[in-house]
Amino acid sequence: MPTNKIETDVCVIGAGLAGLTAARRLSQGGRAVTVVEARDRVGGRVWTRPGASGLRIDVGATFIGPHHDRLHALTKEMGVSTFATHTAGDTILATGGKVRRYRGDVPRINPLALLSAGQAIYRLNAMAKKVPVDAPWDAPRASEWDAQTAAGWLTRTNVPTRQARVLIETTIRALFCCDLSEVSLLDVLYLIRSAGNLEALMTVEGGYQQDQFVGGAQSIPEAMAAELGDSVVLGTPVHAVTHRADAVEVVSPEITVVARHAIMAIPPALASRVHFDPPLAADRALLLHQLPAGTEIKAVVVYNEPFWRSDGVSGASVAMDDPYEVTLDTTPPPGDVGVMALYAAGPKARTLAALQPDDRRRIVLDIMRRRFGPKASSPIETTEQNWAEEEWTRGCSMAHFGPGVLTQYGRLLREPIGRIHWAGTETAGTSHGAMDGAVRSGERAADEILQGAISAS
Amino acid sequence: MPTNKIETDVCVIGAGLAGLTAARRLSQGGRAVTVVEARDRVGGRVWTRPGASGLRIDVGATFIGPHHDRLHALTKEMGVSTFATHTAGDTILATGGKVRRYRGDVPRINPLALLSAGQAIYRLNAMAKKVPVDAPWDAPRASEWDAQTAAGWLTRTNVPTRQARVLIETTIRALFCCDLSEVSLLDVLYLIRSAGNLEALMTVEGGYQQDQFVGGAQSIPEAMAAELGDSVVLGTPVHAVTHRADAVEVVSPEITVVARHAIMAIPPALASRVHFDPPLAADRALLLHQLPAGTEIKAVVVYNEPFWRSDGVSGASVAMDDPYEVTLDTTPPPGDVGVMALYAAGPKARTLAALQPDDRRRIVLDIMRRRFGPKASSPIETTEQNWAEEEWTRGCSMAHFGPGVLTQYGRLLREPIGRIHWAGTETAGTSHGAMDGAVRSGERAADEILQGAISAS
Repeated sequence: MPTNKIETDVCVIGAGLAGLTAARRLSQGGRAVTVVEARDRVGGRVWTRPGASGLRIDVGATFIGPHHDRLHALTKEMGVSTFATHTAGDTILATGGKVRRYRGDVPRINPLALLSAGQAIYRLNAMAKKVPVDAPWDAPRASEWDAQTAAGWLTRTNVPTRQARVLIETTIRALFCCDLSEVSLLDVLYLIRSAGNLEALMTVEGGYQQDQFVGGAQSIPEAMAAELGDSVVLGTPVHAVTHRADAVEVVSPEITVVARHAIMAIPPALASRVHFDPPLAADRALLLHQLPAGTEIKAVVVYNEPFWRSDGVSGASVAMDDPYEVTLDTTPPPGDVGVMALYAAGPKARTLAALQPDDRRRIVLDIMRRRFGPKASSPIETTEQNWAEEEWTRGCSMAHFGPGVLTQYGRLLREPIGRIHWAGTETAGTSHGAMDGAVRSGERAADEILQGAISAS
Repeated sequence: MPTNKIETDVCVIGAGLAGLTAARRLSQGGRAVTVVEARDRVGGRVWTRPGASGLRIDVGATFIGPHHDRLHALTKEMGVSTFATHTAGDTILATGGKVRRYRGDVPRINPLALLSAGQAIYRLNAMAKKVPVDAPWDAPRASEWDAQTAAGWLTRTNVPTRQARVLIETTIRALFCCDLSEVSLLDVLYLIRSAGNLEALMTVEGGYQQDQFVGGAQSIPEAMAAELGDSVVLGTPVHAVTHRADAVEVVSPEITVVARHAIMAIPPALASRVHFDPPLAADRALLLHQLPAGTEIKAVVVYNEPFWRSDGVSGASVAMDDPYEVTLDTTPPPGDVGVMALYAAGPKARTLAALQPDDRRRIVLDIMRRRFGPKASSPIETTEQNWAEEEWTRGCSMAHFGPGVLTQYGRLLREPIGRIHWAGTETAGTSHGAMDGAVRSGERAADEILQGAISAS
């Protein structure tokens, strides 16, 4: 079959937030751009899927925090509005079969456990302050922190109270979606540093979950793609990238794009599957092979009203004994329906993944009923998403670094290879792992090309 | 261009020891077999390269131990002979600028350090005994051991003497070719268990380095390939594997093989690059993405005689301060030339890899002169090999497991996916990581198909 050939200035691989941001910036800078995307939609790990009831449901990234200024700027530019995540009312903590309600960010658990958790969070924040946000491998104690797992740090010595350890364990597992044995302590500190402090990652008001997007998060990539028009080519999985001193050739089954530069804006696990010619140097290949992402199942339940609000609870709940540990209210305005998101992370998500969808649905409704009462038994619809099963994502929320990887290979994260540049939230310092990090990485990769061209002229 | 289609019973992907063993066994069992191999040679990580002087030089796997009975049986069947690695004479230990000579396996270092190292080895062996050789994830303390890195275990508490720690660190680094922070303690114990004890992995006489192959290790895969004839197709990198209930289709740019079964006999890092249709389930994809291999540079120096032997030294040397820490005598019989192999592992190998070949050669000759005297300055030739740079291998000696990976994903190592079976030394229990393990894995994968066929008839 004849292969379509496109000639352009820059070929962007991946139409997620990072790739589209880069493409738009390059386009505004006068460059011809082609974005190739494996799926039949844009957005990557951002996906607002129309539910059976017609409601647009965020099954991937959902939230934006007050400090995510690059994403806020983009949101405004694309004409998308945000709304505050609902927080009025009690938070629910369900442990040992008991359902407790509390106000604010501090759960009603054993005061000693709280003290112990508070001290641990203080220590983690203090260590994270020593981590350079754009170069965690240069932290004074980088080698020491990178030689241990998060599980190895979270011992009786560092956090004496068991309940406090479980609390912090649940938090880290929710952030990385993997077991605490799989992630380097340095990576935990890197993530904390990239957010400012651990509280920012964990909290709704003032933190990463403060606001949501009217119409869903995918409204932004959709608006960017509309602006880019025919430059975005869907259904185009890239098999090979051939790079020479003067050009890059990006090969997919039906299209070959010949460009002056390329931007890899796909998750590292997918980049590691691309055939490069000449082959990647050893350290780069080893980096990409050592950046797996975790497993998370997000279940979304839609009700005909956000009934929990009138019961005086916010919708936020945590139950460390349950498979889906965390819930958050993701009801869109004006609140004429009620939407709840449930999250299962790491080993728990992988155990759930082995079940049938109907069994998972039963578990979701059981949990909802136990935490929020009998009204939770009658949803309009439920839906779920496991990003680890997605061939063109392979895990979420972001890649994690096992011990030894950041210090040894991390320097190569965003180092260009000739005319090939690297974007994606994994390459971001500030807001690493978040949508804001993806946007920042796309801006940076585009600037590398724009500024390189200026300095060469 | 028209694609060549081959129809066969079994398609084996990878013509290393594992793949060729499987193919030969299947062929003997009356099955039609096609072996597809990306390179233009067979042998995989076994490669006997003709040097400038015409000598056949093992630049990859070289040695065979007394307990490697499946490899011994194969060696005999293929008409290849072995010879004993030269051990007569003193071993050299060079530390802190001093060159010391000692007899036997026990270096002349601080007796307290030796005691401390001995105790640590005793403990590691004792722990390894609790690890089921074919299911390390079922060890009673698997989770605990898998939650820590080898570096995390090798502390002052477990090994009080610094010199002893350095000795054990050097050993583990030489085995895994990565930093001790990158490998799970459970993986270390798995490797020890698969060899019987740590001493077996480390020693020449009675251990993994006891014998070598006349004509080089590649003589065996070459003989197997000769027997298989046209069934082995070189220069065929596999891009995609499509699997259905009744058949498997193995796709490379110029050939498509349609078979009743397939055997993946390539390193995990390469298997993770193959496009499967339908896509791999999440846990399998995450397993393959979490099995990187290490970096090792093997340098081989050829002299017109094994001059060190007449100086009363065996050729075995260790210098933990040098970039190439270990040397071994790999002189083939009758000993009319002298051949020495030098090894650099993990971070040291990666530092060396960044240098120019001439600089590395200078370092090699410096080390040889310091350890073996002025005659070492005048070789006939030197050659080197870095398997991490090889696109169709990507690291050596074998893949390692970071913390948490074995316990969570290890069960899938050799679990067939429908008609797709898995071989390669990484899937072996006994002799895991060695050539003998590759042979065993090939036999096992072939038997899965042969016995499956019997039970179905």
